[in-house]
Amino acid sequence: MPSEFALIERWFKRPTRHTVLGVGDDGALIRPSDGCELVVSTDMLVAGTHFFPETDAEDLGWKTLAVNVSDLAAMGAQPRWALLAAALPAATESWLERFARGFFACADAFDIDVVGGDTTKGPRNFCVTILGEVPRGCALLRSGAQSGDDIWVSGRPGRAALGLAQLQGRVVLDEPTAVDCLMALHRPQPRVALGLALRGLASAAIDVSDGLLADLGHVLSASGCAATLRLDGLPDSAIERECLLSGGDDYELVFAVPASRRSDVRALTDRLALPLTLIGAVEAGEAGSIRVMDAAGHPVEVGCRGFDHFL
Amino acid sequence: MPSEFALIERWFKRPTRHTVLGVGDDGALIRPSDGCELVVSTDMLVAGTHFFPETDAEDLGWKTLAVNVSDLAAMGAQPRWALLAAALPAATESWLERFARGFFACADAFDIDVVGGDTTKGPRNFCVTILGEVPRGCALLRSGAQSGDDIWVSGRPGRAALGLAQLQGRVVLDEPTAVDCLMALHRPQPRVALGLALRGLASAAIDVSDGLLADLGHVLSASGCAATLRLDGLPDSAIERECLLSGGDDYELVFAVPASRRSDVRALTDRLALPLTLIGAVEAGEAGSIRVMDAAGHPVEVGCRGFDHFL
Repeated sequence: MPSEFALIERWFKRPTRHTVLGVGDDGALIRPSDGCELVVSTDMLVAGTHFFPETDAEDLGWKTLAVNVSDLAAMGAQPRWALLAAALPAATESWLERFARGFFACADAFDIDVVGGDTTKGPRNFCVTILGEVPRGCALLRSGAQSGDDIWVSGRPGRAALGLAQLQGRVVLDEPTAVDCLMALHRPQPRVALGLALRGLASAAIDVSDGLLADLGHVLSASGCAATLRLDGLPDSAIERECLLSGGDDYELVFAVPASRRSDVRALTDRLALPLTLIGAVEAGEAGSIRVMDAAGHPVEVGCRGFDHFL
Repeated sequence: MPSEFALIERWFKRPTRHTVLGVGDDGALIRPSDGCELVVSTDMLVAGTHFFPETDAEDLGWKTLAVNVSDLAAMGAQPRWALLAAALPAATESWLERFARGFFACADAFDIDVVGGDTTKGPRNFCVTILGEVPRGCALLRSGAQSGDDIWVSGRPGRAALGLAQLQGRVVLDEPTAVDCLMALHRPQPRVALGLALRGLASAAIDVSDGLLADLGHVLSASGCAATLRLDGLPDSAIERECLLSGGDDYELVFAVPASRRSDVRALTDRLALPLTLIGAVEAGEAGSIRVMDAAGHPVEVGCRGFDHFL
């Protein structure tokens, strides 16, 4: 079996494009751009909790990085550098090769230098730390939403959860829908371009990792506001509705924008070739509370808002 | 059981001292000092691989951060920010309270803001990412050692490995030695002050995490040099000798300094109240190779150089 150092050399050491010193010393050296703040975030993915042990290694490599990129997108930051720490039960070369291929495909897609990491033996676990840049004072925070703001969501949330439900045998989707939903589950597309475009436009933003209502709730709690959602075209089936409202793992952005700038957001849909849907409004009220209405204005019952690892 | 968010709020959200935005958004916001580069490093600690499951939680909290601080010390960087991702089999409040106490004790000791993290369910695993600052071009690298440099080591390496051997029943230490070695194992003291003092003085540095010979070997390989060590007072017992030469987990610094500046290093011993021992010299030769001699100049047989997770 190859050594830890050989593994790192072979699969995780690649040329960098904007880094002073990458993998191979006690730490990496990076030089932030003048006038910028750094956004830094870390996420841990655990076999059995975040992914099935049998998940395709290449998909998993992509997703491991993509979920971190999404955190930067939600802050309006430009992703720049990432580190990967991995615990592996054994150093299976073919598995690692495929994982690395997916991981670096995502790194290349978003021009991210992989500058460091750690490889150790243990139950399969991946921990990525990502760093990005944003001009001083321009980061999108959760805490800036104000009464009167529109609430928007990108893409078509709920698909990843529906894909998971299909894998779990809780729903049977037609073939094209299944393919689409499994793609959303396995190859999430972080909304970096949208996050950058929302600088100076959105008053608050978050990515949907725990569930649409749960994550919107975080924004509202941090902003001291409430919201009413008015959802057109709510699916009839209970499970599809649950996936839409409470399904995690989508990595779309939910964001608040002053109603006066509605046309600016609509213009982004075309520029980014990405659906952006107006789903409700921020209002005064109990911090974090959300009322959900259907298109006819009738209240919709909501069960669990989202996912919590320890509940 | 408390929720993931309640856990983070209760144990891992503390006021920060030099951070724009800490725990609680999609990422933290930090503002690097003008003229500085950032050093960033990540380390993963796994139950059963890096620590015994029954390790005291407070000790483990300290060590989880300390081993990362040590990486910055080895680069000559000032530690500034850290993130902690943790997988836990269950959210045991009392255990987490103790872990957090040790973790923040280390953060406070080195003036580190804990700015983010992640909490998830899974086999016990901790991944820390640490960020520090160093004036541009002043970082200590592994690659700068040159023929003619002295090789120095701080403290008394081998103690942590000896403490581990005691726990494993492979050696029986007298009481004061056991206490001393277990302290080295459980509460390593990263050599930050030394690292800062070595800026502009050392030509290369590394921390001893895998073993004295293994880590010195990394420096020599990166520098394209060989070395001869001349070790006074080598212990007679095979296990003590093995711990000294190949034992990991000490987090002392091994560093190369031009022989012309020997007195500057000796002066540091007093200023830092830290033993600094001259153990050998860098020389031309096969990159990474090390000859070990005893005080009388007789060659010493060396078995394994250090630890590798996948060998």
